[in-house]
Amino acid sequence: MSNAKRAVVLLSGGLDSATTLGIAVSRGFECLALSFDYGQRHLREVKAAEAVAKFYGVRRHVTQKMDLRTFGGSALTAEVAVPKDRGEKPEARSQKLEGIPITYVPARNMIFLAFAVGFAEVAGAADIFLGVNAVDYSGYPDCRPAFVKAFERVANLGTRAGVEGKRFKIHAPLMQMSKAEIIHTGLTLGIPYQLTHSCYDPVGDTSCGHCDACLIRLAGFREAGVTDPIEYL
Amino acid sequence: MSNAKRAVVLLSGGLDSATTLGIAVSRGFECLALSFDYGQRHLREVKAAEAVAKFYGVRRHVTQKMDLRTFGGSALTAEVAVPKDRGEKPEARSQKLEGIPITYVPARNMIFLAFAVGFAEVAGAADIFLGVNAVDYSGYPDCRPAFVKAFERVANLGTRAGVEGKRFKIHAPLMQMSKAEIIHTGLTLGIPYQLTHSCYDPVGDTSCGHCDACLIRLAGFREAGVTDPIEYL
Repeated sequence: MSNAKRAVVLLSGGLDSATTLGIAVSRGFECLALSFDYGQRHLREVKAAEAVAKFYGVRRHVTQKMDLRTFGGSALTAEVAVPKDRGEKPEARSQKLEGIPITYVPARNMIFLAFAVGFAEVAGAADIFLGVNAVDYSGYPDCRPAFVKAFERVANLGTRAGVEGKRFKIHAPLMQMSKAEIIHTGLTLGIPYQLTHSCYDPVGDTSCGHCDACLIRLAGFREAGVTDPIEYL
Repeated sequence: MSNAKRAVVLLSGGLDSATTLGIAVSRGFECLALSFDYGQRHLREVKAAEAVAKFYGVRRHVTQKMDLRTFGGSALTAEVAVPKDRGEKPEARSQKLEGIPITYVPARNMIFLAFAVGFAEVAGAADIFLGVNAVDYSGYPDCRPAFVKAFERVANLGTRAGVEGKRFKIHAPLMQMSKAEIIHTGLTLGIPYQLTHSCYDPVGDTSCGHCDACLIRLAGFREAGVTDPIEYL
């Protein structure tokens, strides 16, 4: 049995969560990965998570199945069109225009973190890694530092481990980074970006290149001065 | 459309959550009920939740399916024997003996509350009712007032509604009550206790009478001076 500290990493299969896993590994954590099959429009994302987890040889990769469509309310889970080509500068648009994107899924990160805490408790991990970042921060309320901090408190008050004196720590290492900084960091760490997936509306394995996720990703690679290794329509 | 304020009530089908729903209804809330089919050993509980929700004619009753056995770690979800006949004074035992019961499911209330917040946000409800109480408080870390308060903060920081100025409130009306007080209150409100289910290890519809849940329930009815209307082996 390894002596490394264990961490649970929330792994969606996107660029951010893959980078987050790479960061956790680089910090010496023995990582467990947690993904969700929550009624997304497609499972391309789940496949990407599996590939990234395999690349890193994580100790255990759990994909939690559940249906967030039960409640409705988001373009990512309901039968609502994914918005395309919203502005030429997606980061600016995303930070300044409409309040909260239609792709926001109510309480998603809250639900994901609650599961991560349960997994961490059972696996004897006290560290949880979450790939939220400044770009998401602009639109999604559950990507803000205050939210992450408040959830850490919940984890420490609401678990056996917390009560017994273990301190949970929720790491959000990308929080203050731009997409280009994330990609720079990731390339330094050798993150397998060719295995990741970000698109909200892919055709097979190919990304659409026009949804918010693609626009933000493409702008990040452009700004970082490197070519995105995945395929676009 | 009704003018009543909407509330989401977490409804397990047990005595406490049924009483909590009755309290929410008595306070004039238009109630939505949320139950979970999470890999319990049996679905008797889910059936009870349906019966209680129907009795109250809730606006909507959602049973969220998910598998908490993925992580393991509890007698309620894993292949571990449910403890029986632990002491003659179950309340005392439960409050003083072993730290946290084996029937504790890691992060369960955290996960349930996160879903309740998502449901509330989609349904336009700002109030969430949760039937945690003083007896549970003793053993389960996620049944303590500080945990509930901390989660309320998470709900207000991590949702669109919270960001837009709606204040979520998590009500735990049973928190300071003994089981006998809960039953007294419930009988005053006409809670259909005959429809509820508490047993961890029933045979068909019949409760075992010997697990922690049965012992606590039976002691509560005894102390309240009334007969429990459900069937025991």
